[in-house]
Amino acid sequence: MTRETNPAGLAERRSDCPIACSLDLIGDRWTLLIVRGLFRGKRRFSEFLASAEGIKTNILTERLKRLEEAGLVERSPYQKHPPRYDYHLTSRGRDLSPVLTAIYGWGRAYFPNLTS
Amino acid sequence: MTRETNPAGLAERRSDCPIACSLDLIGDRWTLLIVRGLFRGKRRFSEFLASAEGIKTNILTERLKRLEEAGLVERSPYQKHPPRYDYHLTSRGRDLSPVLTAIYGWGRAYFPNLTS
Repeated sequence: MTRETNPAGLAERRSDCPIACSLDLIGDRWTLLIVRGLFRGKRRFSEFLASAEGIKTNILTERLKRLEEAGLVERSPYQKHPPRYDYHLTSRGRDLSPVLTAIYGWGRAYFPNLTS
Repeated sequence: MTRETNPAGLAERRSDCPIACSLDLIGDRWTLLIVRGLFRGKRRFSEFLASAEGIKTNILTERLKRLEEAGLVERSPYQKHPPRYDYHLTSRGRDLSPVLTAIYGWGRAYFPNLTS
């Protein structure tokens, strides 16, 4: 196992496997749901909080910070007092599109009675 | 949010989104690494334990059990005393191939200096 940190500076690499490195960043129940929201045009913190899955404020804050640090998301201020930000995907983030498409397709095939 | 359980019986559905339902099952740092191993021909508990990422025994046990309960993995005994099992993917598990391929491709593109 290497002791090199990954580009996100989030954790030591567990191995040199691209899948393992990716999962260190996106391998949880929430991160790809935030990326999904960004693909669907969500921009603001309150819009992510309003998602059907009921993400908690602290989880959303932490995941957006990680995504920004990893270069998948950028934010730009839209209000100064108090400070508020718009979030959008970088090209690196948009390149997760095939990952989301594959997961969506698998879920559609195997979870019955989905309405969306 | 629906209160229906998912087919794996693992948790209540967070929403009717196929991505959210999928992540309830495979959205962690380890599950897809076990699926990766199965695609690469790993069959036995000891083979998964020997992976470069150093998965812990209790995590491996729990994930294999979840994958079996969700119908992605089947096991068959190869030894009776003590009981030992071979694990293999079902068709539902093999259908995760596009997900792994997409994550692999993304990781190859964005994590530098990977050797595998």
